[in-house]
Amino acid sequence: MELPRHPLVGLIMGSRSDWETMQHAAQVLEQLQVPHEVRVVSAHRTPDLLFEYAEQAEARGLEVIIAGAGGAAHLPGMTAAKTRLPVLGVPVESRILKGLDSLLSIVQMPAGVPVGTLAIGRAGAINAALLAVSILANKYPRCKEALERFRKTQMEAVLAEPDPRTAR
Amino acid sequence: MELPRHPLVGLIMGSRSDWETMQHAAQVLEQLQVPHEVRVVSAHRTPDLLFEYAEQAEARGLEVIIAGAGGAAHLPGMTAAKTRLPVLGVPVESRILKGLDSLLSIVQMPAGVPVGTLAIGRAGAINAALLAVSILANKYPRCKEALERFRKTQMEAVLAEPDPRTAR
Amino acid sequence: MELPRHPLVGLIMGSRSDWETMQHAAQVLEQLQVPHEVRVVSAHRTPDLLFEYAEQAEARGLEVIIAGAGGAAHLPGMTAAKTRLPVLGVPVESRILKGLDSLLSIVQMPAGVPVGTLAIGRAGAINAALLAVSILANKYPRCKEALERFRKTQMEAVLAEPDPRTAR
Amino acid sequence: MELPRHPLVGLIMGSRSDWETMQHAAQVLEQLQVPHEVRVVSAHRTPDLLFEYAEQAEARGLEVIIAGAGGAAHLPGMTAAKTRLPVLGVPVESRILKGLDSLLSIVQMPAGVPVGTLAIGRAGAINAALLAVSILANKYPRCKEALERFRKTQMEAVLAEPDPRTAR
Amino acid sequence: MELPRHPLVGLIMGSRSDWETMQHAAQVLEQLQVPHEVRVVSAHRTPDLLFEYAEQAEARGLEVIIAGAGGAAHLPGMTAAKTRLPVLGVPVESRILKGLDSLLSIVQMPAGVPVGTLAIGRAGAINAALLAVSILANKYPRCKEALERFRKTQMEAVLAEPDPRTAR
Amino acid sequence: MELPRHPLVGLIMGSRSDWETMQHAAQVLEQLQVPHEVRVVSAHRTPDLLFEYAEQAEARGLEVIIAGAGGAAHLPGMTAAKTRLPVLGVPVESRILKGLDSLLSIVQMPAGVPVGTLAIGRAGAINAALLAVSILANKYPRCKEALERFRKTQMEAVLAEPDPRTAR
Amino acid sequence: MELPRHPLVGLIMGSRSDWETMQHAAQVLEQLQVPHEVRVVSAHRTPDLLFEYAEQAEARGLEVIIAGAGGAAHLPGMTAAKTRLPVLGVPVESRILKGLDSLLSIVQMPAGVPVGTLAIGRAGAINAALLAVSILANKYPRCKEALERFRKTQMEAVLAEPDPRTAR
Amino acid sequence: MELPRHPLVGLIMGSRSDWETMQHAAQVLEQLQVPHEVRVVSAHRTPDLLFEYAEQAEARGLEVIIAGAGGAAHLPGMTAAKTRLPVLGVPVESRILKGLDSLLSIVQMPAGVPVGTLAIGRAGAINAALLAVSILANKYPRCKEALERFRKTQMEAVLAEPDPRTAR
Repeated sequence: MELPRHPLVGLIMGSRSDWETMQHAAQVLEQLQVPHEVRVVSAHRTPDLLFEYAEQAEARGLEVIIAGAGGAAHLPGMTAAKTRLPVLGVPVESRILKGLDSLLSIVQMPAGVPVGTLAIGRAGAINAALLAVSILANKYPRCKEALERFRKTQMEAVLAEPDPRTAR
Repeated sequence: MELPRHPLVGLIMGSRSDWETMQHAAQVLEQLQVPHEVRVVSAHRTPDLLFEYAEQAEARGLEVIIAGAGGAAHLPGMTAAKTRLPVLGVPVESRILKGLDSLLSIVQMPAGVPVGTLAIGRAGAINAALLAVSILANKYPRCKEALERFRKTQMEAVLAEPDPRTAR
Repeated sequence: MELPRHPLVGLIMGSRSDWETMQHAAQVLEQLQVPHEVRVVSAHRTPDLLFEYAEQAEARGLEVIIAGAGGAAHLPGMTAAKTRLPVLGVPVESRILKGLDSLLSIVQMPAGVPVGTLAIGRAGAINAALLAVSILANKYPRCKEALERFRKTQMEAVLAEPDPRTAR
Repeated sequence: MELPRHPLVGLIMGSRSDWETMQHAAQVLEQLQVPHEVRVVSAHRTPDLLFEYAEQAEARGLEVIIAGAGGAAHLPGMTAAKTRLPVLGVPVESRILKGLDSLLSIVQMPAGVPVGTLAIGRAGAINAALLAVSILANKYPRCKEALERFRKTQMEAVLAEPDPRTAR
Repeated sequence: MELPRHPLVGLIMGSRSDWETMQHAAQVLEQLQVPHEVRVVSAHRTPDLLFEYAEQAEARGLEVIIAGAGGAAHLPGMTAAKTRLPVLGVPVESRILKGLDSLLSIVQMPAGVPVGTLAIGRAGAINAALLAVSILANKYPRCKEALERFRKTQMEAVLAEPDPRTAR
Repeated sequence: MELPRHPLVGLIMGSRSDWETMQHAAQVLEQLQVPHEVRVVSAHRTPDLLFEYAEQAEARGLEVIIAGAGGAAHLPGMTAAKTRLPVLGVPVESRILKGLDSLLSIVQMPAGVPVGTLAIGRAGAINAALLAVSILANKYPRCKEALERFRKTQMEAVLAEPDPRTAR
Repeated sequence: MELPRHPLVGLIMGSRSDWETMQHAAQVLEQLQVPHEVRVVSAHRTPDLLFEYAEQAEARGLEVIIAGAGGAAHLPGMTAAKTRLPVLGVPVESRILKGLDSLLSIVQMPAGVPVGTLAIGRAGAINAALLAVSILANKYPRCKEALERFRKTQMEAVLAEPDPRTAR
Repeated sequence: MELPRHPLVGLIMGSRSDWETMQHAAQVLEQLQVPHEVRVVSAHRTPDLLFEYAEQAEARGLEVIIAGAGGAAHLPGMTAAKTRLPVLGVPVESRILKGLDSLLSIVQMPAGVPVGTLAIGRAGAINAALLAVSILANKYPRCKEALERFRKTQMEAVLAEPDPRTAR
């Protein structure tokens, strides 16, 4: 199936300060040329906006939602409560408990409402984007090809690593 | 001010299984004769019900909400996002992480939307009820008297403790 | 697109003893009528089998892999290293550290190789299946319908909860 | 009821160094124009002062006490032991265990003597003030109005967030 | 110096239920024939009794205080705030966080007011008694002899252990 | 009894780098004029020296040993295994696990061999010295007086704290 | 080189109660026919015995030492301090902190004195024996063959696993 | 037996950035003149390379493998799954969870496939090298001598420590 031009991935975050982490997800989506949108939506400060966003996501053509949040990170779980789309959660590193609170708040969802959780911080943001693309790749050959190229390049970069004992 | 007859405290929990913990809150409210109501409201499985409940709480005359939840416990925080009433959160002991996940999910709220969090489990449920009564006690003399009696009785029970070395 | 009859979801686990947890994933897939297969594949004791399984998964028509493992749970991550399919990881509750070790071993994947991680134990197994179905639902209308029915039933079950104060 | 001019909120902390955290509570109280007082009272170094303060708090017209402390943070709990007023506890971030020790020392109170606990650090200080105001808001319309304005402004600030992809 | 007949060690605990743990301290004191007394004193439910007890301890001839408590265990620290006698703290195992909360609440005292903390639970209770005796042993030869005998017996018991491969 | 001139407190630490923490203990002992000695003794790198030190401590007139160590901190426990003198342990903050490893390695001693454990880091070092002095104070009036003066000064310093809202 | 008949592996543990865990190491050594000895040696209660044991181990022909201990588990580290033989440590599951204390006490050794640490509990005991055999296998062909057979059998057992969905 | 000239120790790490930690292992091996090789091998990004490396290690003459990795550190465990050589694992300090995730991912291996785990970070890297040498020392007298010299020097360095109270 041909890749649509409207956003397929909705990338949301609880606060503008989460962008430092979540921009790494956006960069991967851009690099792999997956149409996506970016929004600040706070579960606690703009709960109605969150509900509206999640309720309309499917009708607007989104196929995956990536939600990043820190602390008592309710954004991914509440989004999942309001849409049947796959929701991927990124625990943003919190200053004090280092994202352990964010991780547990996102991953320990009760039976019935899943959030696919990635690693804390930057690695999690990158991987949320890659997992989103792997989901789309089941349906869109162009995503599959882009993902395979990405993985191949990544593997070759490690294989080309010089002996670490030599100077940088 | 005279104590109204309609519920002043709304006691909600994420699932029927939380009642084993939250009944201890209800028992204290009954013992101190504070009008209250009890509801199962799931943040994840019935998000619209939760929003409706929280939105109408103040208009219906509630003055404090006690919310108990376990795991990725989003109920207290999402309630607080939708009402300006004081919200007290009780981390229900989870089978696996023993409520540490529930505690962090409830207490680590971002600046702007507070949840007054109590201890994990039964002690927290009892104390949520007592804290609710202490809040009401600022306004309703009958609550203040009931609370003072409760504290006095509790103190006297410790003072009357026999030497622990004597048999039970 | 019509739902194929060959397995779309590969459900693997590190040891037969993980079945107690992972059967809950299988039950959901059965209930929602999603074709799937079940295998014991140990990352540590049968590494070659794991590599073979992951390498051939896509060609065999699988679209999502669910991997459950406990302790130093390497199964989900090593599967993800060998396939571009979306991999969902379920931390199986370990006897000693209660699955916290499994959770961190699964979720803290480095940038480049994602595993969508679910909650520790039974809830995570159920949710891995639901997330797999939500991924398939983007492509197969029958999965989408099944998922929507499941979520509606679940919501109605909570709404129908009697007052917890009444006897069981 | 009209808002009195004498302090309604007592803001105490275990050491002068906690002010860096607790000043955020004071700023919110000032911004919402709630009469309050600020004191350094150490549970461990000035236990008699603490008892005197807590014993006289209600008679002096205080309606809520906010207590911030770090490490083996006994200040909130011992205050609650000596007054029936609602006590809100703020775990101050400790240098070494990052406030996890403070959090557990404050929140894990035994049944009978509640402390409503907020998040570790600055967010907790802000939220303690907001929770105090929401408690007062049940009785004083001016507090209610101030709180509603604060929440509305906060919501609008998020709604006005530009796309994070645009430069700062 | 001759061993006095009045209690030298005050053994206090926050609640009668702590006796299950703290009785092991009493047994060691009895076995080593150290005069001691046992009391239930709750920091939270009987704060005035605690202050009175700690203030009078030295004048009454006590030379060491052992305080056992669980959860937000404030008893040892508040005792130490009110007496210059050495205070030894025993974290009682809590049902939910297994005494980790008790341990941190007792050991993380601020500079200026020390509590010598022992292990969580039964081992800690036994060791609090032994440490108390080692403190008294500096002054009372009979305590020193009793302690040396205890240590010798304990060592010999290990040396006499049969090969563990032989049946019990 | 008159205070002897030979060292009463032996202050040992596992490595020179622990001095940054343990110097705070030495400063308190100096301030309170308690004769003491300071040594680097490593449980792991100089085990024989440790055994010799602990074995001879009592005969050399020491009455209390303070041992500071980080990581797998075996110094306090192994000292306690070789002397009946009271041993106080200070968990030195480790770079990586922040002293939580040191704390558990020191405090979780098995029944039979106690170590009185203080807080992690600087506060623990100060408090180890104060607890040592409180132990000596049972026997040496000059220590008792010095300790009482210290506590009084400390209390007065808090009472003299200006309002934190005024500038430094 | 031919396998000697005298013990090559010394299996020691801190207390008789650790045998429940450590017997699994002995069983593997027996199954693979590696000469070994078993002893109870307590670092805290019989420190001199431990030093003697570790000092003489090499001269007595031991080539690997396996040490199991719980709580503030000093046995493996102190053994390593007294012998240049490879020392493998097994954290025995403690009742309260579940062996997390034992794990950190064993693994976090300072630079200079290594302990190769295995998993907490039974799996760790089995693996300590296997690692000991793999060390001996570099020198003794019979150990190498036994180990290879063990690994092959183990692999085949997984490959022969029936479908977990079929009844036990 | 004479020390061969080909590499006896294979030192691998998951990413070039781990070299900052793992170079300390290489330095010790160099200092003790043990032939070794260094490679970047990623379990997740180059799984086939890892399998090839581990499969051929023994035939290539390696006798010990040291593997350093961070986060969901699968490198040591997957290496151990593919070779019967002793594998030593070094948890590299991760930025966010400080290596606690790496430690648990490495040490909590299931029964059957051991990894001898060292401390997190630099100390662990140094100790992995020392443990590797102690393993080789059973077979190669030159390794034994080098190790004994290292330990003696290390001990003497501590014994020569000046009084820490004297200036640096």
